[in-house]
Amino acid sequence: MTKPYESNVVLATREFDVIGTRPIRHDGADKVTGRALYGADFYPVGLLRCKILRSPHAHARIKSMDTSRAEALNGVRAVVTARDLPDGPIDETADLGEGPVSLKYMRNNVLADKKVLYRGHAVAGVAAVSEAVAEEALGLIDVEYEVLTPVMTAPDGLAEDAPVLLTDLREVYGAEEGVTSPNLAKHFRHRLGDLKEGFDRADEIIEREFHTSTVHQGYIEPHSATVLWNADGRITVWTSTQGAFYVRQSVSSILGVPVSRIKVVPMEIGGGFGGKFPVYGEPVAALLSSRTGKPVRIVMRRDEVFEGTGPTCGSHLKVKLGATAGGKIVAAQAYVAFEAGAFPGSPVPYASTAMFAPYDIPNVTVEGLDVVVNKPKTGAYRAPGGPNVSFAFETVVDEMACRLGLDPIELRLLNAARDGSRRVDGTRQSNLGCVEVLEAMRSHPHWSDPLEGPNRGRGVSLALHTHIGFASSCTISVNADGTVNLVEGSTDIGGTRTAVAMQAAEVLGIAAEGVQPSVGDTDSIGFTFGTGGSRTAFATGWAAYEAAQDIRRQMIDRAAKIWEADPDLIEMAKGVIRSKHDPELRMTFKELAGMLNETGSPVIGRGNVNPSGVGGSAIGNIVDIEVDPETGKVDILRYTVVQDAGKAIHPSYVEGQMQGGAVQGIGWALNEEYFYDDDGQMKNSTLLDYRMPIAMDVPMIDTVIVEVANPGHPFGAKGLGEGSIITPPAALANAIHDAVGVRMNRLPMNPGAITRALWKKGSPS
Amino acid sequence: MTKPYESNVVLATREFDVIGTRPIRHDGADKVTGRALYGADFYPVGLLRCKILRSPHAHARIKSMDTSRAEALNGVRAVVTARDLPDGPIDETADLGEGPVSLKYMRNNVLADKKVLYRGHAVAGVAAVSEAVAEEALGLIDVEYEVLTPVMTAPDGLAEDAPVLLTDLREVYGAEEGVTSPNLAKHFRHRLGDLKEGFDRADEIIEREFHTSTVHQGYIEPHSATVLWNADGRITVWTSTQGAFYVRQSVSSILGVPVSRIKVVPMEIGGGFGGKFPVYGEPVAALLSSRTGKPVRIVMRRDEVFEGTGPTCGSHLKVKLGATAGGKIVAAQAYVAFEAGAFPGSPVPYASTAMFAPYDIPNVTVEGLDVVVNKPKTGAYRAPGGPNVSFAFETVVDEMACRLGLDPIELRLLNAARDGSRRVDGTRQSNLGCVEVLEAMRSHPHWSDPLEGPNRGRGVSLALHTHIGFASSCTISVNADGTVNLVEGSTDIGGTRTAVAMQAAEVLGIAAEGVQPSVGDTDSIGFTFGTGGSRTAFATGWAAYEAAQDIRRQMIDRAAKIWEADPDLIEMAKGVIRSKHDPELRMTFKELAGMLNETGSPVIGRGNVNPSGVGGSAIGNIVDIEVDPETGKVDILRYTVVQDAGKAIHPSYVEGQMQGGAVQGIGWALNEEYFYDDDGQMKNSTLLDYRMPIAMDVPMIDTVIVEVANPGHPFGAKGLGEGSIITPPAALANAIHDAVGVRMNRLPMNPGAITRALWKKGSPS
Repeated sequence: MTKPYESNVVLATREFDVIGTRPIRHDGADKVTGRALYGADFYPVGLLRCKILRSPHAHARIKSMDTSRAEALNGVRAVVTARDLPDGPIDETADLGEGPVSLKYMRNNVLADKKVLYRGHAVAGVAAVSEAVAEEALGLIDVEYEVLTPVMTAPDGLAEDAPVLLTDLREVYGAEEGVTSPNLAKHFRHRLGDLKEGFDRADEIIEREFHTSTVHQGYIEPHSATVLWNADGRITVWTSTQGAFYVRQSVSSILGVPVSRIKVVPMEIGGGFGGKFPVYGEPVAALLSSRTGKPVRIVMRRDEVFEGTGPTCGSHLKVKLGATAGGKIVAAQAYVAFEAGAFPGSPVPYASTAMFAPYDIPNVTVEGLDVVVNKPKTGAYRAPGGPNVSFAFETVVDEMACRLGLDPIELRLLNAARDGSRRVDGTRQSNLGCVEVLEAMRSHPHWSDPLEGPNRGRGVSLALHTHIGFASSCTISVNADGTVNLVEGSTDIGGTRTAVAMQAAEVLGIAAEGVQPSVGDTDSIGFTFGTGGSRTAFATGWAAYEAAQDIRRQMIDRAAKIWEADPDLIEMAKGVIRSKHDPELRMTFKELAGMLNETGSPVIGRGNVNPSGVGGSAIGNIVDIEVDPETGKVDILRYTVVQDAGKAIHPSYVEGQMQGGAVQGIGWALNEEYFYDDDGQMKNSTLLDYRMPIAMDVPMIDTVIVEVANPGHPFGAKGLGEGSIITPPAALANAIHDAVGVRMNRLPMNPGAITRALWKKGSPS
Repeated sequence: MTKPYESNVVLATREFDVIGTRPIRHDGADKVTGRALYGADFYPVGLLRCKILRSPHAHARIKSMDTSRAEALNGVRAVVTARDLPDGPIDETADLGEGPVSLKYMRNNVLADKKVLYRGHAVAGVAAVSEAVAEEALGLIDVEYEVLTPVMTAPDGLAEDAPVLLTDLREVYGAEEGVTSPNLAKHFRHRLGDLKEGFDRADEIIEREFHTSTVHQGYIEPHSATVLWNADGRITVWTSTQGAFYVRQSVSSILGVPVSRIKVVPMEIGGGFGGKFPVYGEPVAALLSSRTGKPVRIVMRRDEVFEGTGPTCGSHLKVKLGATAGGKIVAAQAYVAFEAGAFPGSPVPYASTAMFAPYDIPNVTVEGLDVVVNKPKTGAYRAPGGPNVSFAFETVVDEMACRLGLDPIELRLLNAARDGSRRVDGTRQSNLGCVEVLEAMRSHPHWSDPLEGPNRGRGVSLALHTHIGFASSCTISVNADGTVNLVEGSTDIGGTRTAVAMQAAEVLGIAAEGVQPSVGDTDSIGFTFGTGGSRTAFATGWAAYEAAQDIRRQMIDRAAKIWEADPDLIEMAKGVIRSKHDPELRMTFKELAGMLNETGSPVIGRGNVNPSGVGGSAIGNIVDIEVDPETGKVDILRYTVVQDAGKAIHPSYVEGQMQGGAVQGIGWALNEEYFYDDDGQMKNSTLLDYRMPIAMDVPMIDTVIVEVANPGHPFGAKGLGEGSIITPPAALANAIHDAVGVRMNRLPMNPGAITRALWKKGSPS
């Protein structure tokens, strides 16, 4: 079903009172007035400051370390190194909800033991009365290094004669088959159908190779934590994190302290995008607090954020696509080698299933490799790995459309995944909006408006992002004035407090403003997985729905008690409780709320869920650009993001996610990269040199919300926060080709890269 | 049933694993290391300091007030007066859970309007960059007073020609009958049986008159509050209070802001004893915050605490008792006139029903009067009014025993209230431990040990304190390591976090240390009445019991799901979940806790209760003293408190309450009083001059816990925090009579008073 483009929300389904409206966010005033308390905004009495000594080398053996001069410095209270971490057997693992992770690697990343594996790798922590004293003490720690040759890319790491980073790698992660390399941490292959038969049926086959650089999430707020290891053995961590319970579990695993002895207080967060899950300074500050008996704060500088935290991986990809003359893609093959950074664990498993995800292709093989290199241990970054693989396959799909003389949207529609299509790992897809998103793109004026002028081009791309579910908890209590207070465990990113509150409000028939949401600490709310994987409005919102249903049932029971009626004959809808039979028995939620204490106990409700995601969110981009042929600079003239939200709980925040993801994808596509010299030294670890998009670089991003309701959520919502970062690299690469006729196969597509491509195209070769 | 005295816990009933043990309090480390954050320990950015201008007169009309010079002072940010409070019609009332209170009076107490009614009455608030500047600004506020004659006692206030404090009194509180006086706010009479017939049957009749002085709760921590009235209209109050929801409601009523726009964060409390329910500076700081856009903190000095908060009332009492020669009390009559302070509302209604409460007397009349006087509006103080009335009737009971030649304990046993006895208001009593407490006293070595030496004496007294129930809420969440986190809304006084946690632990079959309790703010937990009325371990503990039962049911359901078994055939006891039939189906709470996320959602539970108290706690005292006949000083040689705890949840904290209450009662009995000059000026508003007991003044207070289980509580607990303050004045008065033969009829019984009594006794008169 295709509708003419009328508004920026199409295919809306059920009618709601609160869901789909745009109330002002509950935390708005605090954020715009500067009252909101972020990671470092906690000042306990007796606070010590911590600084971290970091490796100046990308790869080196620690021959000796002497902290005695630092310890003797006036104002220094303690120095800790890897020796102060508990020992764990090498095969002990901790599961933080994203698969098992070697405890030893977690500890070694927090404080290097015997070897440093990347420039910026932490080797010691100092607690002192001031940052200046702590900094000075760092210079008094004597470390003797034996410098080793660094490995900086996946292909280099896979070379037979590559320097070896971790000698124990095989003991933990066995490569399943194929490539052998001491730096290969994981190797797997997904197969669907018969690849050879598929390519045999193809009229056109295109095979291309791609490289992408390491990029950082680029959150505004550096990592910070304040930690008190109290005299009774309880540890409290105040930190800006995407997952308070994740931090609790990480600190527990690394320090060998039960989770119940740790309380994590999630402060407001100045961005995370996947990078604010792992712990870095928290365990170090905890050890220093234990030593000193004082609270210890650690705050990173920007260069420490770049060099000492977890950016997303650079990658090396190959894609081969076969299609019939009519445009039916019959075979697809991909090779996906991701840099894990210094320790195993890139998002290559996820990225491999995201490869070709928006299409129904009968014969597919995807090979995935996780390769350790001398860069920071990678972290998640918004739809982890999605932009890498999308850049690869969506530019090949575009090239295929060109070669077959087909409209790129029509080609995609012809091959779009639908309910029942299989992913590369063999699982059936359901509840997809790929077709609806493509149809919305096709009917959008941006697609039909003419684009005139030299060196201008238009590109499109399509992605399908599968969100996660996982556990969330919520409690709600009823106030006497007919409002409710809600406590949830999800860090608020992008307005999730309000999106969660709205789902409770809808059930209770009250206004969104009638719900006062709070984000609880780990002592105050049930286990809740972190804010990531596009899960929060979906799963924590669902927990709020369940808690509100718990309230609803109790309010009905109370009304039944007051009316001396059968609760089964009473209903509550749109904020009114009434008898199904007696029209005189009727009162509002507010009226009943005002008499709870006189008629029984207060009413509080609980909701706890652990859903699966059910399907994914499709995203399409249309972009118009102009290339300056002399400098290679790309100007974005117009940008439209179309995304399936299932049901948009709060359309403004959906649009905000779509715009924010697009801008991050644009930065990744056109400019951002970790620029390394031959010694593995990052040369651009400031926000002046690491070029993220600024307001001047992007036009207003237009958004179209498509709503293909999710039957796996009470209001039809899908997780959608991450997906919009996936599509820009391919859409821009396709637009660049449309504008100046060159196919880009390396990110970033910065002016230098485009100029070189233009020279190459212009040269007789 | 009488048992020989063996331990300090007698009559224990059911067997428990956690209830009745003595775990270390969860907040202990924070409290002993200074980490706990009290009222004033919150430092937001941009904090302004507030000081209050207070009336120097006990009674005066405000002829004019000019704040312009103060406002012009460098560093002053705002000045507010009663003009800045919202107007409310005079008959509008706010119900804070203790009966309706005139809004106008609440506001007038916070900032005086037109008249000041006591020395210390707030007339203006200043917000400035520092306390020093704020103090200086107070001196620049020009107030012109017309000084009026003050009324300082209930008898003075009731005089026909007394100065009139409030002209609108009658419009709000109608005197029911009898006495007429413009300062009489409430007048009532309880009648039981036929008083005349009763006295006609009596062989002995004693009639006595008593006076008690105003005393203060004497908490260590002065009142403080930090308030931010945010740009979005939300008010946050950080304060040390006994009832966060009470403060929320008070601020709401006084400022005309809905409760849902107010968040109260209860900090740790340095004592309250009933005096930390009312708000004083909170609304003033809120107005100043609204004016300035900054957070504003107010912290009282000690003299402001004495003169500007709510001490308990002075009183004038008359008791007439008639008994048969055999010791049966057949008639009792009392007159109870309490000073309300500047506005109506003394605890005289409660005190009137506490009069004669431990006894079963067939014919009783009690007349109660609430009289406004030019003293601070009284607040609650531990068992409000109980010590006043007990001092009166228990000394008359003692005198009756002497006159009849009966043992004072035997006389009390003969007349002790039992299940089914009527109180003076006609209600039936149930579940009483008066007899058991008297029997424990009689069998205690303190009663049988000889007391030798001149000027030494022994006294006893008995009281029955009825605790309250009211609403409490609790949530509990299960950690993966088999511990749980608990959130409750009750300010922790005397270890209630632990007493509440233990009741959850008992249900779940885990250790008390396996429960991590937190006190939530008003946004984070359901409505919970304040910590007062001896209710917290009783009612909030019960809410924890219910929340734990909710957890228990869910754990059983989860086990049923895992085992594919019928939940009805699964039981959970002592931390083990097992099939009732299949011995192989068995796992511990901890094992199941570790697999919750893999088998479904996290588990959180809720409990919300609103119980009535069911009976009361009987308290008996035995005290030995020695009077110095030259100075009148009383030395306490030995002190034993016997109290019915129902079931002692945490015996150490029960004993702590018994000891603490006894010491406060001793202070009230022997030394404490507001000492006023003729102009109504308090002359002893420092802790050097207002003489509270110090360690040198009291011996170790011995305690005997009697357990007469309360059928109205899951573990049999009774509220017991307040009762032990009631008995010391009478016990000491009776001991003084035993020692030196004088009957004291005025509190405090300080050296001067005793010396005067001895002179009077010695003189031929």
